[in-house]
Amino acid sequence: MANNADTVLIFDTTLRDGEQSPGATLNVEEKVEIARQLSRLGVDICEAGFPIASPGDFEAVRRIAEEVGPLTEGRRSGRPMVIAGLARANEADIRRAYDAVCAAPRHRIHTFLATSDIHLKHKLRIDREECVDQVIKAVTFARSLCDDVEFSPEDAGRSDPDFLVQVLGQAIAAGATTLNIPDTVGYTTPEEFGWLIGYLRANTPGAERVVWSVHCHNDLGLATANTLAGVKAGARQVEVTINGIGERAGNTALEEVVMALSTRPQTFNLDTAIDTTQIARTSHMVSTYTGMVVQPNKAIVGANAFAHEAGIHQDGMLKHHLTYEIMRPETVGLNTSQLVLGKHSGRHAFRVHLQAMGYDNMADEEITAAFKRFKKLADKKKVVTDADIEAIIADEIYQPPTIWELEHIQVSCGDHSIPTASVLMIGPDGERYQDAALGSGPVDAVYQAINRIVGVTNRLTEFSINAVTEGLDAVAEATIRIQPDGEDSYVINPQTNRPIFRTFSGHGASTDIVVASARAYLSALNKMLAERDGHANVRHHAQERVVA
Amino acid sequence: MANNADTVLIFDTTLRDGEQSPGATLNVEEKVEIARQLSRLGVDICEAGFPIASPGDFEAVRRIAEEVGPLTEGRRSGRPMVIAGLARANEADIRRAYDAVCAAPRHRIHTFLATSDIHLKHKLRIDREECVDQVIKAVTFARSLCDDVEFSPEDAGRSDPDFLVQVLGQAIAAGATTLNIPDTVGYTTPEEFGWLIGYLRANTPGAERVVWSVHCHNDLGLATANTLAGVKAGARQVEVTINGIGERAGNTALEEVVMALSTRPQTFNLDTAIDTTQIARTSHMVSTYTGMVVQPNKAIVGANAFAHEAGIHQDGMLKHHLTYEIMRPETVGLNTSQLVLGKHSGRHAFRVHLQAMGYDNMADEEITAAFKRFKKLADKKKVVTDADIEAIIADEIYQPPTIWELEHIQVSCGDHSIPTASVLMIGPDGERYQDAALGSGPVDAVYQAINRIVGVTNRLTEFSINAVTEGLDAVAEATIRIQPDGEDSYVINPQTNRPIFRTFSGHGASTDIVVASARAYLSALNKMLAERDGHANVRHHAQERVVA
Repeated sequence: MANNADTVLIFDTTLRDGEQSPGATLNVEEKVEIARQLSRLGVDICEAGFPIASPGDFEAVRRIAEEVGPLTEGRRSGRPMVIAGLARANEADIRRAYDAVCAAPRHRIHTFLATSDIHLKHKLRIDREECVDQVIKAVTFARSLCDDVEFSPEDAGRSDPDFLVQVLGQAIAAGATTLNIPDTVGYTTPEEFGWLIGYLRANTPGAERVVWSVHCHNDLGLATANTLAGVKAGARQVEVTINGIGERAGNTALEEVVMALSTRPQTFNLDTAIDTTQIARTSHMVSTYTGMVVQPNKAIVGANAFAHEAGIHQDGMLKHHLTYEIMRPETVGLNTSQLVLGKHSGRHAFRVHLQAMGYDNMADEEITAAFKRFKKLADKKKVVTDADIEAIIADEIYQPPTIWELEHIQVSCGDHSIPTASVLMIGPDGERYQDAALGSGPVDAVYQAINRIVGVTNRLTEFSINAVTEGLDAVAEATIRIQPDGEDSYVINPQTNRPIFRTFSGHGASTDIVVASARAYLSALNKMLAERDGHANVRHHAQERVVA
Repeated sequence: MANNADTVLIFDTTLRDGEQSPGATLNVEEKVEIARQLSRLGVDICEAGFPIASPGDFEAVRRIAEEVGPLTEGRRSGRPMVIAGLARANEADIRRAYDAVCAAPRHRIHTFLATSDIHLKHKLRIDREECVDQVIKAVTFARSLCDDVEFSPEDAGRSDPDFLVQVLGQAIAAGATTLNIPDTVGYTTPEEFGWLIGYLRANTPGAERVVWSVHCHNDLGLATANTLAGVKAGARQVEVTINGIGERAGNTALEEVVMALSTRPQTFNLDTAIDTTQIARTSHMVSTYTGMVVQPNKAIVGANAFAHEAGIHQDGMLKHHLTYEIMRPETVGLNTSQLVLGKHSGRHAFRVHLQAMGYDNMADEEITAAFKRFKKLADKKKVVTDADIEAIIADEIYQPPTIWELEHIQVSCGDHSIPTASVLMIGPDGERYQDAALGSGPVDAVYQAINRIVGVTNRLTEFSINAVTEGLDAVAEATIRIQPDGEDSYVINPQTNRPIFRTFSGHGASTDIVVASARAYLSALNKMLAERDGHANVRHHAQERVVA
C-alpha cells in the first residue's frame, strides 16, 4: 500500500482485537454496520476479523469485504477502505483469510508469528531458524494471493532486536508490504518503544520499501504515548480501536491518537484521512453494540471530555475559554442537531432523517418497524433526539436471530412487596408460552420467569443501564452479559492458545428500564442459543416486535 | 517536606481537583471516608479541598485534618498523611486554608498563581512584575503560618520558561518547599513536558532545595506518560487522582503511575509508599461515591484489566500466562476473599468482618442499620460478598442529610400497561405525604410521584445502574445526577473564574433496580435541598431506613 510520508494510516482493529474484549461479542449484522461507520469515519484499513477462528468470523469478514469494501461515500481519501483478515503463519489460515477478504476491491492479508525466545520455546516449540523459514513461507504464500501483505512479529517487545531485524528483513524480501510491531504485553514505555521502532527501521534491510506500523496495548495507561512515540520514530500506520476496547485494558484508542495528531500539528506535522466529526457517533455505536461503556472522564469521547462547554453562551466566557482549551466539541461531532422530529413527523420525514444520519441501506420493513417505535416514543417523550433514534435502530434492527421472542411482560415491585413478573413468549416452534416468577427485584423476576420458559442455565456477569439522553423521560439502554454454564463456558483462542470465556452481550432500549432489561436479556440469550444450536437467522424479523 | 531521592511522593487530589468533575460532588461524610481510605492506601499528601470555596469545603478539609490527619494505621511509611489545602495567592485564601488544615499533625498550604501572559493579561490583569511580587508575598505569608508550602504556577505549560525560572526562584527564596508544574490545558506531549521539568530544575536558583512536582491532565490520553516523563526529568512528587477523575478528561490516574513505577523497576528505579493491594478497593469507593463509573477497559482498575484471569485453574495455563503478563490481580487487591457471610451469620461476626474490611470507626447504630440490611439481603441472595457489603455501607451510612425520606414505594409496569408508581414519604416537618403518578417507565413514574410531593424542579442529566456482583440476584447500584433549574444552576469557580454547573449526584443500592433508582434520586434531591436551604445534617440517621 502506497503511503504518503506526511500521512499516518489508520488501521482499525475494533472488529478483530477489540472484539476479543470479554463480553464484546458482536453478531454479523452489528459488525457490518460498524464497518460501514468506520468507512464513513475515514479509516484506511479495517481489520474485519480472524477468518479461520470460526465460521461466524469468516462470514462477518466476507460480508464486510463484499458490502463495505467497495464504499467510498463520505471518505476524505476518495478511496475505499482496505479490508484485512488476520491469519497465523500457515497456508490454511492464509488461504481462509484470503477467501474472506478477496471480494473487497482493496484487501490485505495480515499474518503473524511470535519471535521472542519465550514464545518460540513454550508456545510454538520451534527454534529461530524454523521461525525464519516459517515467516518466509507464509509471506511468500500470502503474496502469491494478494499484493498487500502485512507481517507482525508477535511479542516483538520482548524479542532480541537483532533477531527481529533478521526476521523482518526476510519478510520484506519475501514480499511483505507493511511490518507491524506489536507491544503485545503492554508494558513498554514511550522511550523504549520509540527506540525499538527507530532501531528496526535503521537496521532492517529494505526498511525503506515498507510501511512501518505500531500496535500497542494500554495495561499501564501508556498506549497512546507509545503509539505516538512509534510515529515520531517513523511508523506511518497505527493499529487502534474505537474507545480503546480490547483484551485486558484494551488497545490504543483511535480517537486519542487522531486528535493528538490533529491538535498538535506543530509537534507532529502529520495528517490522517479521518473525518473527526464522525468520532462521537462511532464511539457511541461501538459502545452500544459491544456493551463496553465509556467512562465520563475518557479522553475525547467521555461524556465529560467537553463537559464545561454545556450551556455557556456568554461571549465573555466563550472568549475566556479559548485560554483553556484547544479542541472544540464540534471537531469530534458533538453538539450537532439535537431536536429532530416530533410526534407529528411522517414516515417520509423519518426516512429522510435516517438517511441524513447515515442509515442509507435499510430495508423497507426495517424502516417501518423503526418508525413505529419512533411514534410510540414520540408519544411518551417530548423531544426525540438523534441519540434516541440511534438507540431505537440498534435495538430494532441489529438484534440476533430471534429464537425466543418476548410478547408481553408485566411486573409489580416495590420495597414492601415481592417483586413479581409474568411473561408471555413465542418459542422457536411458533407456540406461545407463559409463566410467572418471583425475584429479588423486578429484573430478576423477569429473568426468572424467562428462565422457567426457556430452561437454559447461564450466569449473568454484568448488568448496566444508562440513559441515552438527559431528562426524566429519557430512553434507557440496558446492556447485560451472560456466560453459559459448564463446558461451553470457554473456547481456546487459536492465536494465543488461551481460553476466551464465552460471554454473550445483549442490549435493549426502552423508556421502561424493566422492559429494556428484559429485551437485553433475551437478546443475549438468543445469541447464546444461536451459537449453541448453530442456528442461521431463524425467524429474524419474521415477526415485528411491538414493545416501545 | 524531606524527600528521599529514590522515592516518588504521591499527592492525591481526588478530593480537590477530582471533585471538580461535573457531578462528582461529595458530601462531608463521603470525603472523610475517602480520605481514610487514601491514608490506608499510603498516599503521602492528601489535598483535601479548597477551603475558601465554600463553608462546606472548609468543613470537609477541617474534619479530614482532625480525624484522618493523625492516622498511621496500615501505612507503610509509618507516618501520617500530610493534609493540604488549596489557596489562591492572597492572604484571605491562605489564612482560610491554614485554619482548615492546621489540626493535622502534618499539614501543607498549596498556593497558586497563573504565570502565562495570556492569563496575566486576561484573567488577572497584572503584569509580570506584579505577578512576581504577589508570589513572594503569598509564599512568605504562607511560610509564616506553616513550614510546608507548595507553590504552583498555573498554566506553566504556556508560560515563558525564563519567566517561570524567575518566578520559581523567587518562590524558593520566599520559602516554598515544593514547586508543582501543572499542565493545565492537558495538551503537552511527554517529550515537551519532560524537557520543561528538566529546564526548570537546571535553571531555577535553589532548585536543589525543593521537591519538584508534576500535575497533568488527560485531554489527549497522555497524562500518565507526561507524568512519568516529569519523573524521569527529576520530579519527585506526582499529583494524581483515583480513577483519573477530574474536569474534562480528568487528571493523571494514581493507579497507572504507581503500577508503572512498580512493574517497571528497571526503567524507573523509584519506589512509592503506596500499598498497591488497596488500589481496587479505593477505586471502587471513589467510583461509588462520586458516581463516576470506571470503564471495563480502564488500565489497572477496569473490570477487564485482568479479565482473562478469571476461572483459570489449570497449572499449564497459569504458567503460560506468565509469558503474557507481569502484573498479578492480587497486586492491586483483586481476587481477595469473595464469600464472606451467610444468612446465619450473627451481628458479632458481621462487625468483625466490617473491621477487617477497614470500617473500624462505625457507630453502633450504623452497624445495627447495616446489619439489618445485610440480613435482608442474605435472605434474598445466597452469596453476600465484600462488594455487596460495601454497597450497603455506602448506601446506608454516607447519605446526605435526610430532608425527605422515602417510606414506601410500589410500582407496576410492563410493555402493555402504563407504568404507575405510588410513594409514601416523610417530609422535613415529620409528616407523611403520599401520591401516585404515571411515567414513561417505572423510574420516571417514581420520580414524577416524588416530584409531585416535593415540588422542586430539576433536570436529570445522567442515570446509570450497575450490578455490584455477578449473578441474577446481584445488588444493583443506581447513580443519578440532577441539576437545579434556573439561576441556581451554576456557580463561578474562584480558581478559574469559570462556571461550575451545580450537579448533585445520588447513589442508592438494592436488589430492586426501581427501589435503588428511587433511593438514588432522593439522595441527590436531598443534597440539592440541603445546599439550597443551608441545612445542617437535619434528621441525619434520625430514622432508620427499612428497605433492603
